[in-house]
Amino acid sequence: MQLSISTIEFKERQQKVISQLAERKIECMIIFSTTDINYLTNFNFRPSERPIALIIDPQQKTHLFVPHMEKEHAEEYAVVDFVFEYPEYPGEVHPMKLLRNYLLNLDFQNKNVGVDSLGYSSPKGYRGEKLNDLLDSNNYVSIQGLVEKMRMIKSQKEIELIKESSKWGNLAHSLLVRYSKPGANETEITGRATLEATLAMIDTIGSIAKFHGDPVNAFYRGQIGKHSYFPHSQPQNFTLKEGDQVVSQAEANIDGYRSELERTMFIKDVSKEQEKYFNLIVQAQDIAFNSVVPGKPLSYVEENVRAFYKENNVEHLIRHHTGHNIGLINHEAPFFDLGEGTIIQPGMIATIEPALYVEGLGGFRHSDTILVTENGAERLTYYPRDLESLIIGN
Amino acid sequence: MQLSISTIEFKERQQKVISQLAERKIECMIIFSTTDINYLTNFNFRPSERPIALIIDPQQKTHLFVPHMEKEHAEEYAVVDFVFEYPEYPGEVHPMKLLRNYLLNLDFQNKNVGVDSLGYSSPKGYRGEKLNDLLDSNNYVSIQGLVEKMRMIKSQKEIELIKESSKWGNLAHSLLVRYSKPGANETEITGRATLEATLAMIDTIGSIAKFHGDPVNAFYRGQIGKHSYFPHSQPQNFTLKEGDQVVSQAEANIDGYRSELERTMFIKDVSKEQEKYFNLIVQAQDIAFNSVVPGKPLSYVEENVRAFYKENNVEHLIRHHTGHNIGLINHEAPFFDLGEGTIIQPGMIATIEPALYVEGLGGFRHSDTILVTENGAERLTYYPRDLESLIIGN
Repeated sequence: MQLSISTIEFKERQQKVISQLAERKIECMIIFSTTDINYLTNFNFRPSERPIALIIDPQQKTHLFVPHMEKEHAEEYAVVDFVFEYPEYPGEVHPMKLLRNYLLNLDFQNKNVGVDSLGYSSPKGYRGEKLNDLLDSNNYVSIQGLVEKMRMIKSQKEIELIKESSKWGNLAHSLLVRYSKPGANETEITGRATLEATLAMIDTIGSIAKFHGDPVNAFYRGQIGKHSYFPHSQPQNFTLKEGDQVVSQAEANIDGYRSELERTMFIKDVSKEQEKYFNLIVQAQDIAFNSVVPGKPLSYVEENVRAFYKENNVEHLIRHHTGHNIGLINHEAPFFDLGEGTIIQPGMIATIEPALYVEGLGGFRHSDTILVTENGAERLTYYPRDLESLIIGN
Repeated sequence: MQLSISTIEFKERQQKVISQLAERKIECMIIFSTTDINYLTNFNFRPSERPIALIIDPQQKTHLFVPHMEKEHAEEYAVVDFVFEYPEYPGEVHPMKLLRNYLLNLDFQNKNVGVDSLGYSSPKGYRGEKLNDLLDSNNYVSIQGLVEKMRMIKSQKEIELIKESSKWGNLAHSLLVRYSKPGANETEITGRATLEATLAMIDTIGSIAKFHGDPVNAFYRGQIGKHSYFPHSQPQNFTLKEGDQVVSQAEANIDGYRSELERTMFIKDVSKEQEKYFNLIVQAQDIAFNSVVPGKPLSYVEENVRAFYKENNVEHLIRHHTGHNIGLINHEAPFFDLGEGTIIQPGMIATIEPALYVEGLGGFRHSDTILVTENGAERLTYYPRDLESLIIGN
């Protein structure tokens, strides 16, 4: 038993890209997206100032273009035919110039070349020329979104990994709740819950699963008391008080695949006003679950949530759309949004989190990860959603 | 006492940008870089599918363009004159179209507009038109690098924050060492050291400092035994064995500012061969420290390190340049690289990490964070560098 993507599956993904390029009469390809490269090759790397690219040549061979420091790392892990290294960035000769020469050797000249962008980009001090300045005899065709679209529909193994992630997220969340009492500090609660969940996970599946980055996390991220009014609050090092409402988050990462679990909870006590909004978001989440109908556009879910909130005169308390796809990144396209025409399809995995934010009181948001099946939404995160279970800290 | 950047300093940064735009005859500005926006406004946000931009209008007023969900968050924290919100991404009307209308109202038409790029970008499913397609009457001038260049020279307060970061990195590293014994698992060692260092830090300076993301971390990241041969290894959930060499890393984050501390260490025992390479990297690091001479180009440091390694017939074991600047991001330009002509200047803060990688044996890398002063390099990280201190696990 292995909780990871197999080499065969990586090769199938590459074959699918190659077929789609052929359909579009594109003869070769260069992509720079870190996540897409990881998805297609199993090369999980730390993006830095040094450019990395995945190439499919006109003979349909795959090449990874990496800095010298990553050559052996790529050879060890990446599912590709060839690894091509350059010395360093910025280097005495810019890596993009060396890429140009390599592409010429691969017979890229005067070809239709699929690209996700015309060059590498990074906030870490990278600068470089664009492909069409370096090798201007080609016809560059944007294939931005091609791999992202493949990533939207999960395979059986990807579904298994995200289901596994949901379990360990549940443990981390349970531990977060255990340590959440009046007087407890959010940084400490997070640290303890995260550490214990991590140890339990590695002792259980550490020999059959791969983890990237932080394996498990549970936190409040400053969403405590009135500060939970900010949907994307940052950690504040707050101390919990009786009567605080909190919005939690827990996530685990199995071979890079993630789930999301969030709960609105109350420390020891809940007011009538808090209860009112709590009930509304739980009902809205039920409406959203039931609106996940294959064949309908994603906007249909958002429309139904908004109609319900409008009926209850709280539409003005909405701050963001109902959810997003999830997989190798915590937010992926498409979105449950009024402007999203993409059709709901079996195999999508997404979050459902129709929230309300009340000034002076706080935020109300449950987030669950769902799998779209032929029959609609199957909930993968299973922490209790009812009020009684979510009055905590006693 | 506050361990954070003051509102006055944010305003000074903005004034400096405004002066530089004026010098270049640029009348207004739009930037999308997350880090640069944080640096100029104190708005520390979680980048997502939703575009965010900082605008300086022709009257030199500052505006933050944010999604509805971030409006109040921005109003609470960002040092700007105005916050302009759009409903959502993708939304019924694309945010970039609403940005266009906002810019027209700010009298952007037919202006010289400084931009860091022509649009927002994100791996989280964002797509959008470019500014020059939406508002084509302007002359767009690239100011990519303008804010990055300001970030290269640290203020007194920035230096203070990175010095403080070095202290807590040292604690995290000491705890990492305490838990590193034969039979211990890297995930567990990391978790315990990180949690304890975090609790000590928040109990000490939690009321006078701000932290973003993970406040403190110490880890091996799979750089254990032969796997330390990969300079950017990822976590492997390894168990330590006697005779393993390890490469550690510790970092803390004070109001977003970081330091870097890395050590090559040996579990209980060190071989003659390991000792040989260890001594070389320590000597190379001394040479690099002494080569940090204000007025010389950054390449000078790399050249001296390479000359030393060449003399000792180990030049072929180099895998990457000697170091990089550091600040709000863990890798920032410029680099101690053969191709880097930027001049070493007082106020720069950078890492010095001239490393060797030996197949079948492992990696040898110490990394220290230094401040460039008028007199050369002042080491900010101070964990012992000598062999005796770095044979651990007894």
